Amino acid sequence: MEQRLSLVTLGVMDLERAHSFYRRLGWVGHEVENTVFFQAGGLAIVLWGREHLAADLGVADAGIGGFSGVALAHNVRSTTEVDDIMAAAEEAGATVTRAASTTFYGGYAGAFRDLDGHAWEIAHNPGFALCADGTLRLPDFSRARDDT
Amino acid sequence: MEQRLSLVTLGVMDLERAHSFYRRLGWVGHEVENTVFFQAGGLAIVLWGREHLAADLGVADAGIGGFSGVALAHNVRSTTEVDDIMAAAEEAGATVTRAASTTFYGGYAGAFRDLDGHAWEIAHNPGFALCADGTLRLPDFSRARDDT
Repeated sequence: MEQRLSLVTLGVMDLERAHSFYRRLGWVGHEVENTVFFQAGGLAIVLWGREHLAADLGVADAGIGGFSGVALAHNVRSTTEVDDIMAAAEEAGATVTRAASTTFYGGYAGAFRDLDGHAWEIAHNPGFALCADGTLRLPDFSRARDDT
Repeated sequence: MEQRLSLVTLGVMDLERAHSFYRRLGWVGHEVENTVFFQAGGLAIVLWGREHLAADLGVADAGIGGFSGVALAHNVRSTTEVDDIMAAAEEAGATVTRAASTTFYGGYAGAFRDLDGHAWEIAHNPGFALCADGTLRLPDFSRARDDT
């Protein structure tokens, strides 16, 4: 299995409501057969009805509310960008679960849950380089220590 | 907010157990301060203790078992690759929730949950191009229909 991810699909209660939320954050998607696709760098973020997604995967769905155990992170180039995006998300109806503040790793970040409870972190992390096209490159951890 | 994703963090019960699972699928990660980082194309996939992740995000955690509402997909270039990866995942302890079979979109895919319940789909989708480097490019939906 190659070390990569192709799509992240978020199960949603109301497709139009979820699409509107991401549209208000400036995203442009394509709705095809009750599914919304966003090209997000080298992968796709997809919105699909939660009940369809659960059934398609063959897993039981106890409904939203609990913690998914998944965090989606969007890293940016400045603390100002963090504040701007956190404000835009709250304005679009997100629940801020941690106000933006300095982090233990020397960065600045905030966290919110979208309308379906999916957890996002918006972060400025000086240690994780963002390329010009927005893709993230991990630092060379092996230069600091060798514990793989 | 730019239309991209920087990191996907999976909350796990036992970091070493989770790291071993992905190692058995052929992934190479770096463990730094009780966190495992995998470079996955233009983003990072991260393993971190579920209780730390929940606390860090400011959300309550009712424990694993329920459906997260998130599906991670890994697309490949052939049906054989789907079968091979599904077998490797099951061998590494994953729970197959849908055996590999032809899909409604004319592809071939199977689904499993990893040791912490995170849902993965392994898919061959002839309609979604994979670049040489493995990155996914969505088709030009607007050419087929215009419903954005």
